[in-house]
Amino acid sequence: MSPRHPYEVIASEHLWQSRWYSLRQDRLRAADGSEVTYTVVEKPAAVWVVPVTAQGALVLIHQYRYPVDDWCLEVPAGNVEPGCDPAQMAARELREEIGGTAEQIIPVAEFYTMNGIGNEIAWVFLALGVTLGQPSREPTEHIDLCTVPIAEGLRMARTGQIKDGPSALAILLCAAELSAHFPESM
Amino acid sequence: MSPRHPYEVIASEHLWQSRWYSLRQDRLRAADGSEVTYTVVEKPAAVWVVPVTAQGALVLIHQYRYPVDDWCLEVPAGNVEPGCDPAQMAARELREEIGGTAEQIIPVAEFYTMNGIGNEIAWVFLALGVTLGQPSREPTEHIDLCTVPIAEGLRMARTGQIKDGPSALAILLCAAELSAHFPESM
Repeated sequence: MSPRHPYEVIASEHLWQSRWYSLRQDRLRAADGSEVTYTVVEKPAAVWVVPVTAQGALVLIHQYRYPVDDWCLEVPAGNVEPGCDPAQMAARELREEIGGTAEQIIPVAEFYTMNGIGNEIAWVFLALGVTLGQPSREPTEHIDLCTVPIAEGLRMARTGQIKDGPSALAILLCAAELSAHFPESM
Repeated sequence: MSPRHPYEVIASEHLWQSRWYSLRQDRLRAADGSEVTYTVVEKPAAVWVVPVTAQGALVLIHQYRYPVDDWCLEVPAGNVEPGCDPAQMAARELREEIGGTAEQIIPVAEFYTMNGIGNEIAWVFLALGVTLGQPSREPTEHIDLCTVPIAEGLRMARTGQIKDGPSALAILLCAAELSAHFPESM
């Protein structure tokens, strides 16, 4: 098996920093002695929460995303704040983005969202028994709610209709768990 | 339905630029008159290519990713270069990363990889009838090859074993097409 870390870090500096993410530039020495520069989008881990009501409806948000100038179907998501437990952050995103509370929040999987340029890890949670209330959103969040039957949500994720990649994958990673809880819906 | 674009761009500048991606900072005026700053990871679109041999084996690469300091199972992927056709880039990534040639390259879907902070679009292609040869890799690419039966590859993507999110989603978005071509493998 290949070595864990083929580079030695010679120097590292932040080119830009913000509350949401930062840009870190590393000077590296490769195994063959050559030097390379790697610039990394440094970002906290984030949670993606798949909300399902007791009646078996998947709750999606329709959200404007400035970076792509497009409205996307997504599930609630957000950065994990320092010192916060990911499951607590999942509950908080649910509350803030859809005014939701859940009977149960289940950790499902994790993945890297952009491992070629950034270090973000996505933690996927399934929120069961979700009831909807009044969301409290940030001023840059433009959001509409939309609920679909679970099977329809899975179909939308499988066919590219959910254009936010991490949301689509989060939903598909929940498929086995959803099938166990809602066998009649699949 | 909500307006297409809730912001007016007041100013825009690049904070940092490179061959692979750049950082653009925009000053925006929201519909309520308030001003916000949005910093966008500006990145060319990229292709993710799911390579399958005539015998029904999915070809994965096991690649070191410096930003996450981890080895990940992935499918070949890379930025679309200016003036290049995405399907041509898919063929090129196949050739460069696994030394592969395909009988057929099918466009399957597209998604955003990081729509909260960046504008990257992922175009997913399914490459059928792939034969493997000698790859020609970039010096920062550390790659091993691994082939698995299609059903096993789909299972790995569904259960989080393929930790590169866009690769896992690319494989799952190909499921219907794979099922049509390899009904006995599913």
